[in-house]
Amino acid sequence: MPTIRDVSKLAGVSIATVSRVINNSGYVKQETEKTILHAMKVLKYEPDPIARSLAGKSTRMIALVVPDILNPFFPEIAKAVENEASRLGYTLILCNTDNSLEKEESYFRVFEQKRIDGVILASYTFDASQIKKWQRKMPIVVIDNRFPEHPTIVSIISHNRSGAHLAVNHLIEQGCQKIAHICGPMDVYSAKERYKGYEDICESQEWFTPDLVVQGNFQIKESYQATLQLMNRHQDVDGIFAGNDIMAVGALKGLLELNIGVPSEVKLVGFDGISIPLVVPELTTVSQPIGEMGALAMFRLVDLMNNRPLESNVQVLNVDLMIKDSSTTRASKEFMK
Amino acid sequence: MPTIRDVSKLAGVSIATVSRVINNSGYVKQETEKTILHAMKVLKYEPDPIARSLAGKSTRMIALVVPDILNPFFPEIAKAVENEASRLGYTLILCNTDNSLEKEESYFRVFEQKRIDGVILASYTFDASQIKKWQRKMPIVVIDNRFPEHPTIVSIISHNRSGAHLAVNHLIEQGCQKIAHICGPMDVYSAKERYKGYEDICESQEWFTPDLVVQGNFQIKESYQATLQLMNRHQDVDGIFAGNDIMAVGALKGLLELNIGVPSEVKLVGFDGISIPLVVPELTTVSQPIGEMGALAMFRLVDLMNNRPLESNVQVLNVDLMIKDSSTTRASKEFMK
Repeated sequence: MPTIRDVSKLAGVSIATVSRVINNSGYVKQETEKTILHAMKVLKYEPDPIARSLAGKSTRMIALVVPDILNPFFPEIAKAVENEASRLGYTLILCNTDNSLEKEESYFRVFEQKRIDGVILASYTFDASQIKKWQRKMPIVVIDNRFPEHPTIVSIISHNRSGAHLAVNHLIEQGCQKIAHICGPMDVYSAKERYKGYEDICESQEWFTPDLVVQGNFQIKESYQATLQLMNRHQDVDGIFAGNDIMAVGALKGLLELNIGVPSEVKLVGFDGISIPLVVPELTTVSQPIGEMGALAMFRLVDLMNNRPLESNVQVLNVDLMIKDSSTTRASKEFMK
Repeated sequence: MPTIRDVSKLAGVSIATVSRVINNSGYVKQETEKTILHAMKVLKYEPDPIARSLAGKSTRMIALVVPDILNPFFPEIAKAVENEASRLGYTLILCNTDNSLEKEESYFRVFEQKRIDGVILASYTFDASQIKKWQRKMPIVVIDNRFPEHPTIVSIISHNRSGAHLAVNHLIEQGCQKIAHICGPMDVYSAKERYKGYEDICESQEWFTPDLVVQGNFQIKESYQATLQLMNRHQDVDGIFAGNDIMAVGALKGLLELNIGVPSEVKLVGFDGISIPLVVPELTTVSQPIGEMGALAMFRLVDLMNNRPLESNVQVLNVDLMIKDSSTTRASKEFMK
């Protein structure tokens, strides 16, 4: 087994310099770092995680901050990140903030105190200035959100707008003649993009009126209530695009309550692609690549922790339409009626 | 504001001794501790969490270990524990082990290294000897499991067996004449108790045969497959008691696949009482007091961290039958047919 001494000899630098590179602590010239990384590769030297943690700055702990652990999207993200983290020798700690700014700040103070190596952040409450403040103390990768005005924030997000196009076009293809949208909070980038995608296609239709858009706030219950109001206002709605999957479930419950058949009378599409299929009938949904998002977040975080340059600060992932039972009558099955 | 000095004066002991009590570090005679706690109460002295963390052994961090973050039961437990933890000034870190013994061991090593104050453990893979090993290094409260042979393990669990009685009796009251059971892993205490509860009532019925019990392994997919086999073997099954809610969802999917009406042809009851109602039709379920379980786990952990004696090492919580749409035709609605 090669040792840190072997690396230092081959690279012609001191052990302390190699240690600085391994632990990502203190300044090392870029050229020197390159030489050291090359020497490590040649010797197949792998620093021992625990030794590394004890010796230097690295704790091999990273944190994933999520806004709502009850939304199955986030446990799935957590699982994806954790798989990659554990493969790479990091321990993942998961922090649920309940959309509370106070809890977020408190977690970040703990991360600083505990010298967490890096943070993957899913937040709809933190703004760019807060992220930038903490970014000075630890690497941060943002997921499911972005800040176009702040290009230094590293983020991974899906093609929300074109995903909404997929959803609405599918409803039109299925024969829907009046399509409503249950949107998420308008100060959340992804919610706004999905709304814009709906608008891109529907605004020019003759049946369109602005009150076909109702606020579901990314929550089941609010979406359920919004659906009741919507169907009361517009009895002729025959398609609903919900801005996330749990709002689609809320809509399903509302339609059930009103004794409206899905998909016979109203066709329904969600967004997220929660893979654990807890809903019967299963939802047609715009599927985000959750596994890929989690893994990429981890990779970018490792890049940041190692001071590697990123090709681009924002990565935008492709989405797919997963056609299930809530928008088409597969195998001539009918639900809820 | 009273200080640690005031407490030490009133109690007639050194500041170091007060500090040992506050930080739960080092030995203090029980009588002395009592005097100090009394003095703290009289003076309304509250140690500052950060000072406490810096000064002594306490890090004000606790960990919750869950076996399967994709089962909504565990995010709900996490939310309940986190609410109490944050109210009491603790930061909760959440660790998902994917039922992997290796990951569990690795997390516990991190907890030791990071001097986590205590651990709430939901695990079906750790055995009593492993828990006892780690218990020597940090306080542990076990939830949703117990070890009757090992009375020193502190645990909080629901009345699983009598919960199963509620489920099965409800199905009988609804007119079911052949009731099957989809069970969880038989080496998991709660799964076994639920199975025993089913057996208590059903074994003496003339329709009973052992192959009415099928293995669903606490997973959606396995339960779905078990349901297909079950209904193929016993076309006349008209009631199913699933050992947890996600297995009930698997059963629902299986019945849907077979075009069997729920609740008209088969009535279905789950176990757990997942409060986020992701399933349409909503499941009748034996509801565990998830919020109470999370809060009590936190309270018992605080007791252990402060060396307070427990009234009893095992707390058993009552369960309720929540009657919803999968077992009765409320409001004369029918689903999936």
